[in-house]
Parts: sequence; structure tokens; C-alpha cells
Amino acid sequence: MSRTIVVGAAQLGPIARADSREVVVARMIALLEKAARRGCDLVVYPELALTTFFPRWFMEDQAEVDAFFETEMPGPATAPLFAKVKELGVAISFGYAEKTVIDGRVRRFNTSIIVDKTGAIVHRYHKVHLPGHTENEPWRAFQHLEKRYFEPGDTFFAPADCLGGKLGMAICNDRRWPETYREHALRGTEMVLIGYNTPYHYPLAPEHDHLQCFHNHLAMQAGAYANGMWVVGVGKAGNEENCVLIGQSCIIAPTGEIVAMASTLGDELVTHDCDLDRCTEIRANIFNFQKHRRPEMYPLLSAPV
Amino acid sequence: MSRTIVVGAAQLGPIARADSREVVVARMIALLEKAARRGCDLVVYPELALTTFFPRWFMEDQAEVDAFFETEMPGPATAPLFAKVKELGVAISFGYAEKTVIDGRVRRFNTSIIVDKTGAIVHRYHKVHLPGHTENEPWRAFQHLEKRYFEPGDTFFAPADCLGGKLGMAICNDRRWPETYREHALRGTEMVLIGYNTPYHYPLAPEHDHLQCFHNHLAMQAGAYANGMWVVGVGKAGNEENCVLIGQSCIIAPTGEIVAMASTLGDELVTHDCDLDRCTEIRANIFNFQKHRRPEMYPLLSAPV
Repeated sequence: MSRTIVVGAAQLGPIARADSREVVVARMIALLEKAARRGCDLVVYPELALTTFFPRWFMEDQAEVDAFFETEMPGPATAPLFAKVKELGVAISFGYAEKTVIDGRVRRFNTSIIVDKTGAIVHRYHKVHLPGHTENEPWRAFQHLEKRYFEPGDTFFAPADCLGGKLGMAICNDRRWPETYREHALRGTEMVLIGYNTPYHYPLAPEHDHLQCFHNHLAMQAGAYANGMWVVGVGKAGNEENCVLIGQSCIIAPTGEIVAMASTLGDELVTHDCDLDRCTEIRANIFNFQKHRRPEMYPLLSAPV
Repeated sequence: MSRTIVVGAAQLGPIARADSREVVVARMIALLEKAARRGCDLVVYPELALTTFFPRWFMEDQAEVDAFFETEMPGPATAPLFAKVKELGVAISFGYAEKTVIDGRVRRFNTSIIVDKTGAIVHRYHKVHLPGHTENEPWRAFQHLEKRYFEPGDTFFAPADCLGGKLGMAICNDRRWPETYREHALRGTEMVLIGYNTPYHYPLAPEHDHLQCFHNHLAMQAGAYANGMWVVGVGKAGNEENCVLIGQSCIIAPTGEIVAMASTLGDELVTHDCDLDRCTEIRANIFNFQKHRRPEMYPLLSAPV
């Protein structure tokens, strides 16, 4: 039986602060319908796909922050997306700000989910590597307050059985950490779905601004190759509220090759036939973990800081 | 005080099986003299620099194998290289097959050393990730018997204080493993010196032959970027005993950028002024380990297989 998943990387252009969920969901549905016509099994959208990237603003009023969070999934605004998934029989993955109650305590995560072809949520992930800072830093051109608005995720990098394979997720800054891919691979993940919002301008080291697109691909291509897994990296792109986000959303083979890439900074779908069995080309050979890894020589990797 | 090290990556062309150590050392000295004229502080040579890459042959006679090993360093053939180091005041690093006696037991390692400007060996490393196989596999165009001829190294990835910085080593296949760079970085390494012998043809997955140069750079560039360290990757290149080895020896900045690269498959020197203080551009920001790593979320990385 073929284990080929036809994947669509559905890049989104900018989302204004004033845009409603309904407006965004309509754009996502338009890409989903296009993907269905292209024969896609799975469509991957960016991190925090339903709103503008709100951690760029310092907000003291928690109610103002919470307006960017979802308290149910699907909710009234996202129900049409789930209905379309079921109607078309195309699975999706997307990110959103999740406000939930666990053991009586309110918790907020930068979350990503996989929704299968029936419209059921089959996998959920909370962002582990939250970048940025916790306090207002007015010297910056824009803030990056993920460490303020979200709790760090406490779910391991692990796949779910979906579409005949083992699919996992990571979010934005997670993709820069080699640990993300390796933890996934050691649990058998064959494809990692990654959404991102990445500005060109990095206030802490603006001398690297021109390298943002290079670093985006470098980290994901290396993660794919060193672990023999498919990587789907999908950004929100373009000038969003005067913060320009990189595009170049792409699909990367287990060899590290970019096999599909967006060429605009707007809503755009790129697709590829991803054969999960190709993971073994790498994993049975050069990166046969069982045969060649030397964990006794890596004592510091799991050690507390 | 400036912490800039002028580094020369001294690629070697093929070495025939019949070539003596003296012939090879003369070639290494010629590159060293050139490097001195270019103002280099440090010259980096390939893995197993003194002989042909002998693990490509199955040999049953241990004496035949041992002829490729050094039992002293420096020995009669390598003494002129050490003398030249001292004369010119240029530090070097190179790889060789080391036969040594530890606690009364003969041991054989794929070894790399750093020799400081006075000609003293200041750091020694035994290859951790031995690739290949242990038995003769005649179906291959050539063998890869590192797992037969060497013991796996048991020294951690760690730097030595040298040339005003923290310099470490890795060897060939080590460079494909993200663990190598991370273990180094967690111990403070600012520059990793890596020698390699990499055939274009990979018998286990020949469909990837055309990707060898891409993978070589991808792994090293990602290791440099994800750890904010300099990487110097130096190959033995060209058609060696009917096995074609890749070149593209290079120096990579802590941003992951290739800043110098060989453009032949022969003896060639490329140089770059490597400012060790540039490591902080990455380590104090995007990859501030103390602030952003989540080792509690990486339980499998150090876990026994």
C-alpha cells in the first residue's frame, strides 16, 4: 500500500489586527478548496493562523490579550473550516492561541493541532521553545512577548498515527533547535508540520536580518536530513501591521532537499507527493540510530541546565 | 585584545596507497609554508592525513593494517612537520590512525590532534561516530571498515584552551550528527576543527550520490548556526585509488555562512579571519541556551539506545 501523502503547504499573507476570525477562516477555506482540487490529503497552515501575530504588542489588559485566544476548538468562527475538512475529506493542521482550563487552572498555550479527514482533532501540541521576553522593551521596533502571553509547552515531541503515517508538530522557534527533530525521530515521527511567524528584523542582532530566510531553511533542511523525515514549514508572510514576515514556506524531503516552495508573500499553496517510505533511505543507512548513535557520549543533552 | 584567529583550511588531494609518509608530510609542509606567508595562526588538515584512506580495503593480516597506524607522534616521518610548526609559529590540527597502549592493552583509534605554535600536542580526540561495517562486503565497490579497524572513541566532545580561544575537534562522520556540535557548545567550544574523507559514492544509498556535497555543507552549516560556533571542515579530495572523494573544504562562520571554500580537488589552502567573539552574536541571543533550552523536554537524547 502506498504511503504517499499529498501535502499542501498553505502560506498565509498578512492578517491585520482588525481582521475577524471569519475573514481569516474564509481565506483558509479558499486554500483548502484549491488543495482539494490538487488532490491534497493534508493542508498545513501557519502558527497562530487565525489572527495577527499579537505578541508583537505589549498589552496590560488581560482581556485585550485574551481576545486573541480561542476557548473552544472548533468554535463558532472555526466550525466552517472543520465542516469543509469533512466535506472535502482533506486533513489539516494549523496553529492558534489556546486558552484552556486544566485541573481548575486557566492555562494559555501556543498550540498546533492536526485535524483528520473526518474533522476530528487527532493530535495537539503546545509550543516548547517560546522565544522572546516577558517585559515591555520599548526600544524594540516591535515586541516579542511570547514568554509573557504563553506558558511553555509540556508535551513531548511525539507523533500521532494519521493518514497512514506518524505525523508530528513543532512551532516556529522550535524548528531552530536540533533537539526538536531528534526527539521526534526517536519516537518515530516521519513528518513534522511546522508553522511560523518570522520577522525579517531581529532586534537583538539586526546584523543578521539579511540571513533570516537562509536560517529558516538551513534549520529545517538539516533537521529533515539528520533525522530522515519530511518537514513541512509554513509561514505567515508579508507586511503585517508594519512588521515584515518572511515567506518561503516549503516542503522538505528526508534528504534535506526543498521540493516545493512558495514564491510570494501572500496566500499561496504549494504541494508535493510525500512518500513516507523514503524516510528509510536515510534511517536505515547513514543515520541508523540503533547502529551508529552514541548516547553515552551525549551526557549533557538531556541534563538540567 | 583581539580574539581573531587566522585559519587556513588545508585540503589535500588524493594520497596513493604506495605514497610514503615523507611524501605526504612534504605536501603538508608546503601548505604550512604558504599559510605562514598568508599570516595564518592555525592550519587544519584532513582526517587520516598521513596515508591513503585505508579502511576502503579488507585486510586479514593485522600487520598490513598496522602499517597505516602511527605508534608515536611525532615519529620519524612527522618530526619535520612539528619542527616546521615551531619554526613558523603556526599551530596545526590533523588526523591520523593511532595505535597506542593503554593499561597494557593495544588500542587503535581514528585520532585528531591540535599542535600549538610551539609544536606541543595540546589536545587529542578519538572519533566517536565510526561509520561503516565490520565484515568484508564484497558487493561494495569499496569497503568502509572503520568499525573493524578502530575502536569507537570514548573522549567527550570538549575544547582545549588554545590560541586564546576554546578549540575542539570532530572527525568526518561526527559532523553529520547534531549531537557533536551541541555537546561541544555546552562545554564552551568556539571553533570545531573537522577533517573528512567522503566518497561521492555511497554504496548503501547510491541514489543520494549527487547529494554528497550538499549534505557535507548542510550538516556543518547547521551545526555552526545552531551553536554559534566556527566550523572548519577539511577534506581529502579527488580520485584516490579509484575512489573519488568530495572536496569543498570550507570555513563556516557562527551564522552558518560559508566564508571560504576550496574550489579544486587537490592540495589547496583557503583562509579566513575568524573572530571568536562573533560566537556571542548567536549565543547571547537566538540560541541563548540558559534562557531558551528545555532539557527536561529532551529525555531521549542522552538515554541509552
